[in-house]
Amino acid sequence: MFLRGSWYVAARAAEVTRQPLARLLLNEPVVLYRCEDGAAVALEDRCCHRHLPLSMGRLEGDQLRCGYHGLRFAPDGRCTEIPGQASVPPQARVRAYPLIERYQWLWIWMGAPERADAALIPNWWWADHREWAYTQPEQIYVKCNYQLIADNVLDVTHLAYVHSSSIGASSITEFPATVEREERLVRLTRWIRDRAPPPLYKRAGGFPDNVDRWQIVEHVPPCYSVNFAGCQDATRRIDLMALSAPTPETERSTHYFYGFVRNFGLADAAMEAIFAGDMVRVFHEDIPVLEAQQRMRELKPDAPSVDLKVDAAPLAARRMLQAMLERD
Amino acid sequence: MFLRGSWYVAARAAEVTRQPLARLLLNEPVVLYRCEDGAAVALEDRCCHRHLPLSMGRLEGDQLRCGYHGLRFAPDGRCTEIPGQASVPPQARVRAYPLIERYQWLWIWMGAPERADAALIPNWWWADHREWAYTQPEQIYVKCNYQLIADNVLDVTHLAYVHSSSIGASSITEFPATVEREERLVRLTRWIRDRAPPPLYKRAGGFPDNVDRWQIVEHVPPCYSVNFAGCQDATRRIDLMALSAPTPETERSTHYFYGFVRNFGLADAAMEAIFAGDMVRVFHEDIPVLEAQQRMRELKPDAPSVDLKVDAAPLAARRMLQAMLERD
Amino acid sequence: MFLRGSWYVAARAAEVTRQPLARLLLNEPVVLYRCEDGAAVALEDRCCHRHLPLSMGRLEGDQLRCGYHGLRFAPDGRCTEIPGQASVPPQARVRAYPLIERYQWLWIWMGAPERADAALIPNWWWADHREWAYTQPEQIYVKCNYQLIADNVLDVTHLAYVHSSSIGASSITEFPATVEREERLVRLTRWIRDRAPPPLYKRAGGFPDNVDRWQIVEHVPPCYSVNFAGCQDATRRIDLMALSAPTPETERSTHYFYGFVRNFGLADAAMEAIFAGDMVRVFHEDIPVLEAQQRMRELKPDAPSVDLKVDAAPLAARRMLQAMLERD
Repeated sequence: MFLRGSWYVAARAAEVTRQPLARLLLNEPVVLYRCEDGAAVALEDRCCHRHLPLSMGRLEGDQLRCGYHGLRFAPDGRCTEIPGQASVPPQARVRAYPLIERYQWLWIWMGAPERADAALIPNWWWADHREWAYTQPEQIYVKCNYQLIADNVLDVTHLAYVHSSSIGASSITEFPATVEREERLVRLTRWIRDRAPPPLYKRAGGFPDNVDRWQIVEHVPPCYSVNFAGCQDATRRIDLMALSAPTPETERSTHYFYGFVRNFGLADAAMEAIFAGDMVRVFHEDIPVLEAQQRMRELKPDAPSVDLKVDAAPLAARRMLQAMLERD
Repeated sequence: MFLRGSWYVAARAAEVTRQPLARLLLNEPVVLYRCEDGAAVALEDRCCHRHLPLSMGRLEGDQLRCGYHGLRFAPDGRCTEIPGQASVPPQARVRAYPLIERYQWLWIWMGAPERADAALIPNWWWADHREWAYTQPEQIYVKCNYQLIADNVLDVTHLAYVHSSSIGASSITEFPATVEREERLVRLTRWIRDRAPPPLYKRAGGFPDNVDRWQIVEHVPPCYSVNFAGCQDATRRIDLMALSAPTPETERSTHYFYGFVRNFGLADAAMEAIFAGDMVRVFHEDIPVLEAQQRMRELKPDAPSVDLKVDAAPLAARRMLQAMLERD
Repeated sequence: MFLRGSWYVAARAAEVTRQPLARLLLNEPVVLYRCEDGAAVALEDRCCHRHLPLSMGRLEGDQLRCGYHGLRFAPDGRCTEIPGQASVPPQARVRAYPLIERYQWLWIWMGAPERADAALIPNWWWADHREWAYTQPEQIYVKCNYQLIADNVLDVTHLAYVHSSSIGASSITEFPATVEREERLVRLTRWIRDRAPPPLYKRAGGFPDNVDRWQIVEHVPPCYSVNFAGCQDATRRIDLMALSAPTPETERSTHYFYGFVRNFGLADAAMEAIFAGDMVRVFHEDIPVLEAQQRMRELKPDAPSVDLKVDAAPLAARRMLQAMLERD
């Protein structure tokens, strides 16, 4: 069961072209393409006649013609031509999804179109701002439920184990974390005060002495998270954030979209390589863990779980999502 | 749910030899082999004892011996020997299916044997007649329900889209089609009058001027179709037919048997290559469409469908089959 | 449905090392490893927190630390450390399975631990005795229910058909077999009197004339069998046994552990090659048969079966198992 009244990332902007792209989102087949003016369109990827995916058809101008019997559909989902008959019945249409291009992603609204409100797209303005560098890696296809990813992002303690050989920090659990709940947001905050900066931070900010560091995760159900990190001393400060937006494909699989922003080393190719290379590898370290979790869950769905202190934030997020589902 | 009281093509005659052949038909395991005199036999491919497929055993004369405990079965399905015990209990038998070799195919009756009536095999006499050439390609294994193939054959308008780069004819929908229903037959008829003959017809019949062409599909549920095509002028006429007999393997997969007959170019190797090559490629163009339809149907079995004018014949055939199923 | 109150072979002793080994047994995930003193441990392979297989973690001394959030488990299944919190709740534990190393196999008790009684492990003392040679091949992964293997072992008549080109003996069914039932054992006995010894026996025992041979299978439900074979004349006698212990992985798959003991040719490398090579190939001949049986059973689970005289022993074993399941 998915929250329908929400924006989800459907694709990276660069994936959607004049060649129709098929993608399953929340267990629904969607076809994505661009009009001649570049505007992106998302339609139900199933002809209303005999259910062939429209992505197997071809574009004619801004319209998509089915590859089986030639029905033609406009960007609003209406069928505009049926070969062999003069009139088009009103029920001949496919679903058209509200779609907004922002932060080099295409955001799709999966609920009732009249409830689509662009203000509900998370405000990740750094991705568009010239004082910030934005790294958008290819999304990861993960064979797990998207909630396992949301849990993972909201739980920073796994860094010490899953990422022990990359970014792992055994000192994380020395500092207490606080969890705050707002109306549509869970925030996990941990400050690590007066410690030596890790090598990346030292290189980025040139800190001579100890710094204060933070790890703050803001999660908005069903699936947006910003992982704020950085450090400061009395005179300097650097910020970097990981943006993540895992989109359910099915109950058992996810298109994991994510990216990074930073306010340092904007023109530094070596720094960019750290984000586009090393950090991507860190994200990939989670995949075997997430997929094994999914397999165990499918093997015995009712196996009991013990909850720990570190679960406070993920559990708060799941409760918040549950309440949203009940109002969906 | 399959219509059991019907003949189905079980195999091409050439496939069945002294080496037992296993084939799943209507979700039932069947083993096919030939006796020493060449007569073909179809038995249940599951030993009545511990269910090993008899196709894993070996022929002894006209009888088939199981490869596990050595039970031996006669062509009528009776067990004739049980190693280690003197008597054979009467319930020790496997099902024997009525089987008739015709048109270089083996036709199997899947219903109660006493109802098997050879007169119910469709009369495709051209395949045996010396004034006609018969091309029998290898069957196609298609991962879709066989009814999607029956629909496809009864709907000629898809030529313009699925076969646009091969035999496609965008003029098809300019001419009205009529649909007739007989007791066990649906007929779709379209005449294209006074037009230039297409290249194949011109080459085959040497027509100097315009011709009248026809496309007539006769469909007999559950799955036999003849697609009559050809053209004529005041003095000449050529005929070609596509014969199709998709046999269900499971609810989701089909052995698609088909062939072509023609009354021109009988000894013309280049003409034969058109049928054994180009026309086979045309049939293969439908496969991705049929399999995508099946996948969409499985993704959301209750997704609504809009019916069009071109569906009159397929819908009539489905209604006819439904009535036959109720009497089966 | 599996008999839980029983020992099963979980692994060959050589498979279990300081590198945790994941194995599914009776549909339960189990992790096997050795402590620093070499003692083997079997734990539930699912962290009690978020269900990651513990086999993806790492050993620290005799304890296993989860690779996700770092929970650490002792060989008795108790969680001994939770990073980030001072206390460990009592429900934080995984199941620990009684495990005994015997005959170069690790025997696991899948039922209530307090009922684990080492005396219920079958007494296969030959495997440990210096007057016997023991051959332990690699287990076979078979895609069938383990009961089909138990049936197979208790039914010697299949030798004439499945193993006709290797050890097959068409004379088997000439001699009557007797079936005896004890409290927890079914015994099938066949004596073949006053016949020439087969080549292997002649080579092994140097018998100049006819011998008496025996084939005795003792089966203890749910899955242990000893297949006693050998021959004797007035002055000499040789014995060989096949030990088999197929362990269910799921309802549809089995880890088939087996081995051979013999009291002849102990230091004869050519004789050892017969057991480690030829006899292993014989066991592999059954696999296609067993897997085809499973597929047929899944295709139509309720297809009727005819029982024969040769089924007396397998049927007695299945009834005995059924009674054990009711008391389990």
